[in-house]
Amino acid sequence: MTHSASSGEPVNVRRGRRPAGEDTRAAILDAARAEFSAKGYDACSLRAIARLAEVDPALVHHYFDGKAALFVESMSLPVNPSFLVDAILAGPREQIGERLAGTFFDTWDSPQGRERLVALIRSAVSNEDAARMLREFLVHEVFGKVASSMDVPEPHLRAGMAAAQMVGVAMMRYVIGYEPVVRASTDEIVALVAPTLQRYLADLSD
Amino acid sequence: MTHSASSGEPVNVRRGRRPAGEDTRAAILDAARAEFSAKGYDACSLRAIARLAEVDPALVHHYFDGKAALFVESMSLPVNPSFLVDAILAGPREQIGERLAGTFFDTWDSPQGRERLVALIRSAVSNEDAARMLREFLVHEVFGKVASSMDVPEPHLRAGMAAAQMVGVAMMRYVIGYEPVVRASTDEIVALVAPTLQRYLADLSD
Repeated sequence: MTHSASSGEPVNVRRGRRPAGEDTRAAILDAARAEFSAKGYDACSLRAIARLAEVDPALVHHYFDGKAALFVESMSLPVNPSFLVDAILAGPREQIGERLAGTFFDTWDSPQGRERLVALIRSAVSNEDAARMLREFLVHEVFGKVASSMDVPEPHLRAGMAAAQMVGVAMMRYVIGYEPVVRASTDEIVALVAPTLQRYLADLSD
Repeated sequence: MTHSASSGEPVNVRRGRRPAGEDTRAAILDAARAEFSAKGYDACSLRAIARLAEVDPALVHHYFDGKAALFVESMSLPVNPSFLVDAILAGPREQIGERLAGTFFDTWDSPQGRERLVALIRSAVSNEDAARMLREFLVHEVFGKVASSMDVPEPHLRAGMAAAQMVGVAMMRYVIGYEPVVRASTDEIVALVAPTLQRYLADLSD
C-alpha cells in the first residue's frame, strides 16, 4: 500500500479526494461507466465524471485523451475510434469503404472484440440508455465523422445507413449466427461490404 | 357456445381431439408457437404441431397454407412472405433491390409491423431459439430464395448480407432509434437501401 488513513497522507492526496495512480484511474472509469449509462454519451461531461469520481477535472485529462478515449476505455472497446477515423480519412477517397470495413473487422472480429460488440448490441437492444450511448457514439464518432468529411448530401442519414449495415453484419455474424455469414472469412465480408459503405459515405452517383 | 361436455358432443368433434373452428385454429397456432420456439423453423414439422395441438394433420393443412404461412400467423407477421417473394421475383431483374426494399418497408414500417419486427429482433438477441427461428426464416424464406433464383455466386452469404442490411436498418430505425434514420421517409430509406440489396442479390459487377 502506498498510503493509509492512519499513517499520514501522501503529499499528492487532498482530503476528500482519491489518491493519484491506478486507484484514481479506476475511479474515473467507474464514474464514467455510471455517467455514460445514466445520461448517454452526448449529455455526459468530463466535469461531471470528475465530480462523481471525486477527483480534480485536470486528472481526467491527465489519464484520458478526451471524452471519446474515456468512453472507449470505460466500455472496454479495444481501440480509440478517433485514430481509426483519422487513418480512414487519410487515404484516397475511392477506397474509403474498403478501409472502413477493413478497420471495423480488424477491430471487432477477434474473440475479445466480438464479445464486447455483442455486449454493446445486447445492452442497446434491452436498455434505452445503452441504445442512446451506442447510437450517439457509433454514429457521431465514427460513421458520422466520415460522412461529414466526405461532403455528401444528408451525411447523417447516410452515416446511419452505413452504421446499420455494420450493426446488421454484427447481428448476423455474432448474435443471430447465420451460418454462411459466420463461416465467411474477414476478407470475404470486407469485399462484400466495402462497396456498400463506399456508396453511402462517398458516392453521389445514385 | 356451440358445444359443451354436458350437452352431448357436436358431430364433428372426435373424443380426445379439439373441436373444429376457431378453437382448432387457435390450438394449432398455440402449438406452432411452442414448436417453433422449441425447435426452430427448420426442425419443426407440421405433423408434430398437429400432434401437440391434438388435431388431425389434415386440419393443419385445412387452416394454413403450409409451414411458412403457419409461422407467419403464429408469429403474427402481417403478411405471408411467399407471396412477397413471388411478386419480387416476377418483375425485371435490374429493379429487384428496389422491389425488395419497397416491399420490406411497406410490410414492416407500419406501427403494427414495426412492433412485431422489434419483438422478433428483441427475442432473437436474447434467446437462441428465437435467433435460430429468425435467421432460418428470414434468410431461407426471403433473402435466400431471392439470391438463389438470381443465380449469383455464394447466394447464401449474399442473402445474409442483404438480410444484415435490413436487420441493421430495423435496429437503427426501430430499436436503437438513431434520429436521422427514424425521421427519414420510407421512400428515402428505400432509395438508399435498394442499390445495396440489388448489388448483393443480383449484380456480379464487383
